Amino acid sequence: MNFISDNAYGASPEILAAVMAAADGTAVSYGEDALTARVTARFSRLFLRDVAVFPVVTGTAANSLILSALCPPYGAVLCHEKSHIAVDECGAPEFFTGGAKLALIPGDGGKLTPGSIDTALRNFQSGVHSAKPSAISITQATELGTVYRPEEIAAIAERAHARGLKLHMDGARFANALVHLGCSPAELTWQAGVDALSFGATKNGALMAEAAIFFDPASARDFGLRRKRGGHLVSKMRFVSAQLDAYLEGGLWLRNAAHANALAKTLSGGLSKIAGVTIPHATEANAVLALVPDALAAKLRDGGAKFYDWSPSVEGRTLIRLVCSFATPDADVERLLDVARS
Amino acid sequence: MNFISDNAYGASPEILAAVMAAADGTAVSYGEDALTARVTARFSRLFLRDVAVFPVVTGTAANSLILSALCPPYGAVLCHEKSHIAVDECGAPEFFTGGAKLALIPGDGGKLTPGSIDTALRNFQSGVHSAKPSAISITQATELGTVYRPEEIAAIAERAHARGLKLHMDGARFANALVHLGCSPAELTWQAGVDALSFGATKNGALMAEAAIFFDPASARDFGLRRKRGGHLVSKMRFVSAQLDAYLEGGLWLRNAAHANALAKTLSGGLSKIAGVTIPHATEANAVLALVPDALAAKLRDGGAKFYDWSPSVEGRTLIRLVCSFATPDADVERLLDVARS
Amino acid sequence: MNFISDNAYGASPEILAAVMAAADGTAVSYGEDALTARVTARFSRLFLRDVAVFPVVTGTAANSLILSALCPPYGAVLCHEKSHIAVDECGAPEFFTGGAKLALIPGDGGKLTPGSIDTALRNFQSGVHSAKPSAISITQATELGTVYRPEEIAAIAERAHARGLKLHMDGARFANALVHLGCSPAELTWQAGVDALSFGATKNGALMAEAAIFFDPASARDFGLRRKRGGHLVSKMRFVSAQLDAYLEGGLWLRNAAHANALAKTLSGGLSKIAGVTIPHATEANAVLALVPDALAAKLRDGGAKFYDWSPSVEGRTLIRLVCSFATPDADVERLLDVARS
Amino acid sequence: MNFISDNAYGASPEILAAVMAAADGTAVSYGEDALTARVTARFSRLFLRDVAVFPVVTGTAANSLILSALCPPYGAVLCHEKSHIAVDECGAPEFFTGGAKLALIPGDGGKLTPGSIDTALRNFQSGVHSAKPSAISITQATELGTVYRPEEIAAIAERAHARGLKLHMDGARFANALVHLGCSPAELTWQAGVDALSFGATKNGALMAEAAIFFDPASARDFGLRRKRGGHLVSKMRFVSAQLDAYLEGGLWLRNAAHANALAKTLSGGLSKIAGVTIPHATEANAVLALVPDALAAKLRDGGAKFYDWSPSVEGRTLIRLVCSFATPDADVERLLDVARS
Repeated sequence: MNFISDNAYGASPEILAAVMAAADGTAVSYGEDALTARVTARFSRLFLRDVAVFPVVTGTAANSLILSALCPPYGAVLCHEKSHIAVDECGAPEFFTGGAKLALIPGDGGKLTPGSIDTALRNFQSGVHSAKPSAISITQATELGTVYRPEEIAAIAERAHARGLKLHMDGARFANALVHLGCSPAELTWQAGVDALSFGATKNGALMAEAAIFFDPASARDFGLRRKRGGHLVSKMRFVSAQLDAYLEGGLWLRNAAHANALAKTLSGGLSKIAGVTIPHATEANAVLALVPDALAAKLRDGGAKFYDWSPSVEGRTLIRLVCSFATPDADVERLLDVARS
Repeated sequence: MNFISDNAYGASPEILAAVMAAADGTAVSYGEDALTARVTARFSRLFLRDVAVFPVVTGTAANSLILSALCPPYGAVLCHEKSHIAVDECGAPEFFTGGAKLALIPGDGGKLTPGSIDTALRNFQSGVHSAKPSAISITQATELGTVYRPEEIAAIAERAHARGLKLHMDGARFANALVHLGCSPAELTWQAGVDALSFGATKNGALMAEAAIFFDPASARDFGLRRKRGGHLVSKMRFVSAQLDAYLEGGLWLRNAAHANALAKTLSGGLSKIAGVTIPHATEANAVLALVPDALAAKLRDGGAKFYDWSPSVEGRTLIRLVCSFATPDADVERLLDVARS
Repeated sequence: MNFISDNAYGASPEILAAVMAAADGTAVSYGEDALTARVTARFSRLFLRDVAVFPVVTGTAANSLILSALCPPYGAVLCHEKSHIAVDECGAPEFFTGGAKLALIPGDGGKLTPGSIDTALRNFQSGVHSAKPSAISITQATELGTVYRPEEIAAIAERAHARGLKLHMDGARFANALVHLGCSPAELTWQAGVDALSFGATKNGALMAEAAIFFDPASARDFGLRRKRGGHLVSKMRFVSAQLDAYLEGGLWLRNAAHANALAKTLSGGLSKIAGVTIPHATEANAVLALVPDALAAKLRDGGAKFYDWSPSVEGRTLIRLVCSFATPDADVERLLDVARS
Repeated sequence: MNFISDNAYGASPEILAAVMAAADGTAVSYGEDALTARVTARFSRLFLRDVAVFPVVTGTAANSLILSALCPPYGAVLCHEKSHIAVDECGAPEFFTGGAKLALIPGDGGKLTPGSIDTALRNFQSGVHSAKPSAISITQATELGTVYRPEEIAAIAERAHARGLKLHMDGARFANALVHLGCSPAELTWQAGVDALSFGATKNGALMAEAAIFFDPASARDFGLRRKRGGHLVSKMRFVSAQLDAYLEGGLWLRNAAHANALAKTLSGGLSKIAGVTIPHATEANAVLALVPDALAAKLRDGGAKFYDWSPSVEGRTLIRLVCSFATPDADVERLLDVARS
């Protein structure tokens, strides 16, 4: 019963098979191969416009490289105070941007709003004493398992662009958000004003594959140089591209995400009926945040469940995070609920 | 007939199989898994001492991260003017170190010598106006297909340590060098004075797997933080470790390198007998540098051979580079020589 | 009636005279001159131990360079959320450290406490996902005109050192704090556990002169290289050192600070008696933060007073900051109070 | 007899007087003062167009900040292998640019030429493996005491702009070059294609004052942020601007440079007549490079002359550098020549 993270699971068989298949013969290295070209074409079709696509192997790389292209060293990136870029990447955005600041914004459900952005922007003086606000980064789905609706994104994008800021979306769990909303990839990104997307696949069935996607390819002109000097240009790129290709093929990515989301819904629904449990945010993607009595948390662990304490215990209850993945067995959810109810 | 680079080929079946096998079940992410621990133990046995091992997916990452640990931002790294870190990594060492300098040193066969190092060091003033020489980086096997003997390395290490510099070895083709020399991994590294090694596997049969290895684990205390903020901590690390594990298992890495080296030897020997061809350096690893008449280069390409022009044509001859890999068919070498002789 | 900042005023006549005098003849450049050596000796006597002294011309340079020596690129500096390094230096600490994070801590009166530091440290996970807490920076006197007592500093230093962090003091207004407390420079710094001090002179009578001071000279071994590559090694250093020399000579620095502090006390006392005015923090140095009715703020400005709005108006009152300097005329304070009372 | 460097001397009386005068009263800090505005206007008149002017206190700051605006982190700056930015700034350009490379180009007399630039550019591959050539930096007057003629600069600028590179001029000794050529500041800079200039005053009579000048003010939009985060925005900026104002007033800068140049000419002419002395480059500015017998060098030093050994002794002769300044006494030159001849 592993609910620690969606990266605790291996990889989808289809993706593994694609990696195997990609090993045959020779190929041009450093991303100039046919498979990588096919992946770019796929993404362009998926997003209904020409996009620039840069496969990498970690979400931190995708996020940080994109932010370095959107925000100058003397700039600031506005983001949620609990966002992955702020608390889980050991300063990678600061490193890649050359020292830009992350301006941390609080907000319910892991989300930014036009209002909270306005408040944050007021903390920046004009002139040269404050860093220059240059980008906003939102996470879709959020770290708390909630999802931005396209109109919420559009409102943030409007704020951003009116002030000359770019909008980045950390889509480590983009598929989970998309499946929840039932809208198109285009609607959820550039049509709502997103400038660049970290498109995640690793957490949803790939071995290690993400893509930095720019909706205005011209803005990515020098991005390849950034990727290379970050050590993120894999020489045998076909092995990354093969993963992305299989991930998108025939809707595998959406099926995987639908599975994970459904389990999370079941889990969330089940837990919410247990005495003393509060589900503080809507369960919209594949993560369930639950405020549970410490005794219950202990019981779950004794029963074999693995999960993460999101916050330390307060007044006898702890906010735990349970993440379902593309490969989490249905039975694990039932078993965990059984333990919880017992 | 692909002799462009050893990264043009796919991956060894044993390594692919290991990746498949690693996909089962759940594992702790971010390198805390059992397979990664096993790989570290393997390397420690291999090198006859406890070593700190950090798997990453590119040689540029391994090199640059190590250099950032060995050289402060105000420091300088001495390296060959044709070394990969100097000419092929788009400034990654400068990026990761925070702006250290590479001091470029000329030298026959892609090698540094105590003498050339002394000359380079004399260019640094004491005081604060010059960057502080902090590390020396050598490539083993070199970019020109030659190999440092242990005593050559020891002489360089002595120079380095006497001046307070650390010695890094870029071992993207470490296996090829080792097989050529027939010595032990320990003799070729820390016993000769190497402080840290970029241990390459990608070019010699892995999909994407390298390891940053520190022979004094204490010196790598904070290296994990550097790897993480560089975006190089793969979440499903088992898929990288599985490659390294299979690579080392049962001597696969040495067999792969022996194959590549043998082909290169055959190629070099064959070409050297053709009129107008000069082999400027001993063929000690898996790359053949050959000065060939431009007409011959054209004939080879017309005949279906792919290779890289190392230097532009001078007086009717071009220095071409032909690289053999773990998977290059024997027949390709024969065929290329047939074309050349025809 | 200029109360905008203490840097609105020129320079003390004694310091100007010293600059003139320093212009005669030739001197060794880049800080190897006799005057600079004299200044180092002076500081060592002042602090009752050998210290390493690096004159620079801005407080931002002193702060950022010191932080780059105390905190690695993958580290974090804990500081008050309103501190100068956090809000007024356009990301200089991030730039000089190579991308370290500032962890912003709230707190009354612009101060950190052991408790608020503990809370902040709990936000850092162990492992590699969080930046590594490496230094604490406190401002003395604070941006809000309050002063840390030696025992408060010692309690913070104890916390810092127990966790392996270094303690930096931004002493842009060190003289004002010292004069308020009446203790010795040693008691206020290294004897309380401070590792490095940005010693300010510019705001208190110099033209442009600050000193980065390390209480353990060995820890500053490579600091000169950092200063040089930051472009902060003034070639004709004697012109900076002459300022510091005259500043310390015969207690000028303490007289200047005493003047500024006394005026601030008068100002604060006078304002506190006016209806609707609140002085939220003790006036311990040369800055007065006052919460004043907006009408009063307007009246003061109409009457010719210049000052800074520290926070935007809330419920009809604005927090204004009035700073007195070494050269603020006594009459200006009286006049401002007259206007206020009228 | 101090010929070590032009920064060994103090400052012109007119400049010292201006600093004194600037100390009166209050002024807006951080460069928003009237004197700084006057300096910008002066430079705009001087260069016959609107220019953006950013006073700083060191040449390293001016150079590095400008290069960071002209060259991205993944870029390369082409410069002479003996240029100040390459050998005397401890990696400041690498630091400020965020890790860009300096591509070192050899060349007679410390000069770049279109031909040597072409050769250097051929070393850069297209694609992502090489850093992107982004700027060229030339020194005027050069470190070897030679001067670029406007048409030489124009030829370099043409090369630069045709390839999308920007042209920077390190004008630490701009006045000396200008006086030698007798042309206008505009002819020597933007009319010849220079994009940005480090305008030096320190070596030619100021205490510490340089200006980063952009000939297209639009290109300097964010430069103020860079200066601030580099710690190079002096709070009491009037004390820097006062120096620049007096420096330009009434042609002081040109008189100072003319004095230095004339002495250098005398020195060069005198030395060239001494047996065994070779003057390898034309003496066009205020520095004399002379290849002298080691015995002569020793005799000069015994006679009280101070100067710098530019290169180590080869075959009994050493290349020494003798620099004359705005304040070098005529008698010192005569005395040195007397010693040399004796």
